[in-house]
Amino acid sequence: MAEKQTEISQLGEFGLIDRLTESLPIVNSSTGYGVGDDAAVLDYGAEKDVLVTTDLLLENVHFDLTYVPLKHLGYKAAVVNFSDVYAMNGTPRQITVSLGISKRFTVEHIEELYAGIRLACGIYGVDIVGGDTSASHQGLVISITCIGDAPKGKAVKRNGAHDTDLICVSGDLGAAYMGLQLLEREKVASAGNADFVPDFAGKEYLVERQLKPEARRDIVAELAKEGIVPTSMIDISDGLSSELMHICKQSKCGCRIYEDRIPIDYQTAVMAEELNMNLVTAALNGGEDYELLFTVPLTDHDKVEKLEGVKVIGYICTADRGCAMVTRDGNEFALKAQGWNPLAEPQNDDLTSED
Amino acid sequence: MAEKQTEISQLGEFGLIDRLTESLPIVNSSTGYGVGDDAAVLDYGAEKDVLVTTDLLLENVHFDLTYVPLKHLGYKAAVVNFSDVYAMNGTPRQITVSLGISKRFTVEHIEELYAGIRLACGIYGVDIVGGDTSASHQGLVISITCIGDAPKGKAVKRNGAHDTDLICVSGDLGAAYMGLQLLEREKVASAGNADFVPDFAGKEYLVERQLKPEARRDIVAELAKEGIVPTSMIDISDGLSSELMHICKQSKCGCRIYEDRIPIDYQTAVMAEELNMNLVTAALNGGEDYELLFTVPLTDHDKVEKLEGVKVIGYICTADRGCAMVTRDGNEFALKAQGWNPLAEPQNDDLTSED
Repeated sequence: MAEKQTEISQLGEFGLIDRLTESLPIVNSSTGYGVGDDAAVLDYGAEKDVLVTTDLLLENVHFDLTYVPLKHLGYKAAVVNFSDVYAMNGTPRQITVSLGISKRFTVEHIEELYAGIRLACGIYGVDIVGGDTSASHQGLVISITCIGDAPKGKAVKRNGAHDTDLICVSGDLGAAYMGLQLLEREKVASAGNADFVPDFAGKEYLVERQLKPEARRDIVAELAKEGIVPTSMIDISDGLSSELMHICKQSKCGCRIYEDRIPIDYQTAVMAEELNMNLVTAALNGGEDYELLFTVPLTDHDKVEKLEGVKVIGYICTADRGCAMVTRDGNEFALKAQGWNPLAEPQNDDLTSED
Repeated sequence: MAEKQTEISQLGEFGLIDRLTESLPIVNSSTGYGVGDDAAVLDYGAEKDVLVTTDLLLENVHFDLTYVPLKHLGYKAAVVNFSDVYAMNGTPRQITVSLGISKRFTVEHIEELYAGIRLACGIYGVDIVGGDTSASHQGLVISITCIGDAPKGKAVKRNGAHDTDLICVSGDLGAAYMGLQLLEREKVASAGNADFVPDFAGKEYLVERQLKPEARRDIVAELAKEGIVPTSMIDISDGLSSELMHICKQSKCGCRIYEDRIPIDYQTAVMAEELNMNLVTAALNGGEDYELLFTVPLTDHDKVEKLEGVKVIGYICTADRGCAMVTRDGNEFALKAQGWNPLAEPQNDDLTSED
């Protein structure tokens, strides 16, 4: 083509998606809510909304088989999809599994991968209902689509946050990213050394967060039990900063979060120190935490304070005030939707320092 | 691993899928019917069954960008999923689109691809509701999942064919495969010659069948209009022989089809002659026709005879008689589920001669 060509890195992943999905028409009455959330909301009946989400995982982009066991990979590939359904306040029910398999894999390898997928499905109560299997000349390709449901009209989207809402996050952040750094470090150290034994002593939590994340089904259940309906919700796959800005953009609002409120595990802090990395940057921008980020009305303050494993980290404000973090010394700095931007970088685990 | 390792080519695609999906549990009441058909059937409400199907397309396995324009590729990637939903007697409603994009693609390239997907969605009345976009180090990856619906209990599966049912097929067979041969021939002829102009004169139909297939929505509508409910149905993506054996295996029956009843277009025959290929082999085993193969009770004979573009090619018999084609000279030979077996061959377009 002779026409103008634009590098994808100029737009980034989110820019490209915006451009491709601009003014998509909707013609079916069963299409409740489409592109732009953790899952699409479909209306196929009187009682439940149907949720659909999909994830594509490519070898050497999203995973490195040097240190990721196939069973763990299968488990994680399934769980990250469940996480997207929970992030809609829904329950995952079915998945389809498509695999592209290159020549170096044997039947036993693929059975290992599938064993991980089956294990995750067993634990989360999800059925495998279909898929596609193909040769690949290009390493392992895993594409999983998850279908779930939510009570009619109760799916929680990204666009419902309001001024004065409280911003809440489950678990702790940055550990999966630090686990990745650790695994990468040991990979480098092991190069060419067949007898190398990686040393993860005292850092087991970080490795587990990276290799075998869980989806926060328990938080969705707690919210229901306490009668809390979040005004918006998203799962943290690309980093707190990026996800918070998705909520703010779609809800047409701003936010303030407090540095000293961001939940960080002790092992994450030790590892950041060891690697001479900025800990808060890792917590803000490190991906793959799969924790839930949600907003609740200020009137739910007392209820939300009682939730185990949930922390209030800030509040929603008007859009004109922008999105910012308040540091320990009282300064503000603007959040950036850094995320992973895997389309800009060959390695998607680069952190761009915010400070 | 020190344990026994089995080459995937020993099992083939269907064998691998059987092994991976053996005794999959079902725990959700919304899972109506899972692995083993064109689409899964989900029960999410009182009026309609929800259908889900997915396809993974990999560069240089399923498509060659040397001669496949990106817009056509997008169109085809969407249509092949719609075809799976029609093959369940359903209507496609939504798709999710996941793309893995390598560095050589620009925003404009991906817009071209998406334009094809959008065009197909516009023509078939389908909404794009989500997806995933990622970097790929390995060429273009396209994973589309399609959600559709069918009136409650009216989805047609592969397992309902009975002894004496008539076997019907829409359109004609083998043309897409011949189109592929033609495109491959011109690719070889053009190698190193920038000014090369491929010659498709008189063979436009073959090229169109390969590059821009359509899904047989019209046949599903005709069946409904005539009050015909097929006892089984499948779309022909891996070749008539392979699909017919899927039906027979799942319906626990056998079949007889007649060589002289297999619908073949004039251009397909000319091309087979030109390439010195066995025409019937191409029609039996050439993939990507996306025609519908279905069975109807013998009592529907008169109705089905009146359907435009549908041909009765044989009948279902008991399992002990096996699956065979009756040749023009009255001999029988057993059908083989050759299909594409893309897992056995680096190039998935190899035809193994049956005769």
